[in-house]
Amino acid sequence: MPPTLVWCGGERGHLEVLDQTRLPHERRVLRLRSAGDVVEAIRSLVVRGAPAIGVAAAYGLVLGLQSQVEEGAFVERARLVAARLAAARPTAVNLQWALDRCLAAVDREPCLAAVWREACAVHADDVAASRRIAAHGAPLVRDGATVLTHCNTGRLATAGEGTALGILFAAWRAGRRFRVLADETRPLLQGARLTALELGAAGIPVQVVVDAAAPGLIARGAVDLVLVGADRIARNGDFANKVGTYGLALASAAHGVPFHVAAPASTFDLTLAEGRSIPIEERDADEVLQLAGQSVAAPGIPARNPAFDVTPGRLVASFVTDRGVLTAPFDVAFKTALGSGR
Amino acid sequence: MPPTLVWCGGERGHLEVLDQTRLPHERRVLRLRSAGDVVEAIRSLVVRGAPAIGVAAAYGLVLGLQSQVEEGAFVERARLVAARLAAARPTAVNLQWALDRCLAAVDREPCLAAVWREACAVHADDVAASRRIAAHGAPLVRDGATVLTHCNTGRLATAGEGTALGILFAAWRAGRRFRVLADETRPLLQGARLTALELGAAGIPVQVVVDAAAPGLIARGAVDLVLVGADRIARNGDFANKVGTYGLALASAAHGVPFHVAAPASTFDLTLAEGRSIPIEERDADEVLQLAGQSVAAPGIPARNPAFDVTPGRLVASFVTDRGVLTAPFDVAFKTALGSGR
Repeated sequence: MPPTLVWCGGERGHLEVLDQTRLPHERRVLRLRSAGDVVEAIRSLVVRGAPAIGVAAAYGLVLGLQSQVEEGAFVERARLVAARLAAARPTAVNLQWALDRCLAAVDREPCLAAVWREACAVHADDVAASRRIAAHGAPLVRDGATVLTHCNTGRLATAGEGTALGILFAAWRAGRRFRVLADETRPLLQGARLTALELGAAGIPVQVVVDAAAPGLIARGAVDLVLVGADRIARNGDFANKVGTYGLALASAAHGVPFHVAAPASTFDLTLAEGRSIPIEERDADEVLQLAGQSVAAPGIPARNPAFDVTPGRLVASFVTDRGVLTAPFDVAFKTALGSGR
Repeated sequence: MPPTLVWCGGERGHLEVLDQTRLPHERRVLRLRSAGDVVEAIRSLVVRGAPAIGVAAAYGLVLGLQSQVEEGAFVERARLVAARLAAARPTAVNLQWALDRCLAAVDREPCLAAVWREACAVHADDVAASRRIAAHGAPLVRDGATVLTHCNTGRLATAGEGTALGILFAAWRAGRRFRVLADETRPLLQGARLTALELGAAGIPVQVVVDAAAPGLIARGAVDLVLVGADRIARNGDFANKVGTYGLALASAAHGVPFHVAAPASTFDLTLAEGRSIPIEERDADEVLQLAGQSVAAPGIPARNPAFDVTPGRLVASFVTDRGVLTAPFDVAFKTALGSGR
């Protein structure tokens, strides 16, 4: 499998991304040469997953600053390009976080080399964060367990091995033997297309289930552990994640099944007191109404397509982060600790 | 739209059913001439919906008894054919209920005419049950409300106007103005394909949502009322319905949204104390893994496909039945009242 995203060359290089919309059937690598290319790739989910879009956006800023920029206008131009990139998708805070890091680098040193260096650091930090999350979370996965997960949180969602799936890869390598139920994750089927692919490739037994089947399976005792990622986490532990996560958390709570969230520090938005302030992206109705190029519903039937939902922090057993296994609320001291970005 | 199912002719007639697997894009009517044809139509969801498969099975018994049966062997033959029909799908109790009614008629009068007469009565009773459910339930739907429903419970699921959707049709005709969110209902998309079609044809505003979006929408106050059907209801009010129903009930309870179940008396199985005894059909993995003839997941990835789940009776605000608006538990007196089948 080609890597999820690769920067090719130095400060005047380009970004190559694996087109995730074509997986699992086709492995097409796209070459992105402008900030606009990156915006489009993020918007269309060619590259997706909160940590991965943060890294892609950082490189997008590099691309947007490669053309000759008048001396003195570099900082202003960087802010304009960053604003365009940040607007590509509204929910995952990693996007804004990565761009803020790069803009801070520009403030310190307004030149292309500085932006590129910071983008590379964002990339490297995400790889390291995946590794630390996996190490902290692997003990949660017991021998013989059945783990339920939602959407995709693996190599395809980050620059490293993943968040929730990264934990599973690490537990498997440590000799733990378990099985996974992967929610298919409508509308775009990241679970069936991507998560099943990644787990299958690692030799981890996986079965796909429709999203709506999960609460009933949890009620029947078929699930020992629920492990999901996140797109934005507020101070009180409320978090946004792929639509359907909240229903899993409710069912887990109703049946005493531990529900854990795996995310890097870059996913925490400690400017928000609670989840209701998280913007929820509404995507195109055709994502719901078209399947494999065919209409599902009768002509003229509309759809509503919220891409995320918000789960209350009180339903979360723990947050597995690169800084350790934490519980909400996250206080100011923690905010400072997280704020460094490393 | 052709009717969901029609018996053509007298006791030696045949059954015509609308092929629901082709909707909404194609309106194909199939002619069923044997009990085996009916078994196959029920199994493959050509005809579906708990009340409708009860009616189809009753006519299937007629078809299975049309060939010359040796005198004296009629009752035995009827039991054999009924057993084959009852095995077509395990969860909805209406199937067994309709066959039991016809077998009782055979016991009283072992001849084809008697079976046919009883099958017609099962059919007529289901039409009447829909009408009464609609009349009892229509007051639940307030002006300006947003109603969430799951799967299909309309003209396509019954011999009449439907259970949950029948209530919506009646409320709309009574001048109430509201909108509906229709869960698409994976894997077979009965909500997107059938419910949206029926509501759209009636002029009722409808939007399709992916099943996993419903809990988040309920949490955001976007739903005033949840109205679903049922496939089997136990004495304590636990009930089986299309997979995904339990998650809706949990979310409704968490946010104080009334959750009502609409079903005819034939859906009550008062031999069962509670829902855990209801058999849950597991269907073919390909229903999950194939969409519009294309594989979703990578080759070799398996799926698990429970077609139903069980919702605890304590999460149900009321059961809207042809006998009135009821609450669990259902005691022996009620069992006797329901037992008559009319």
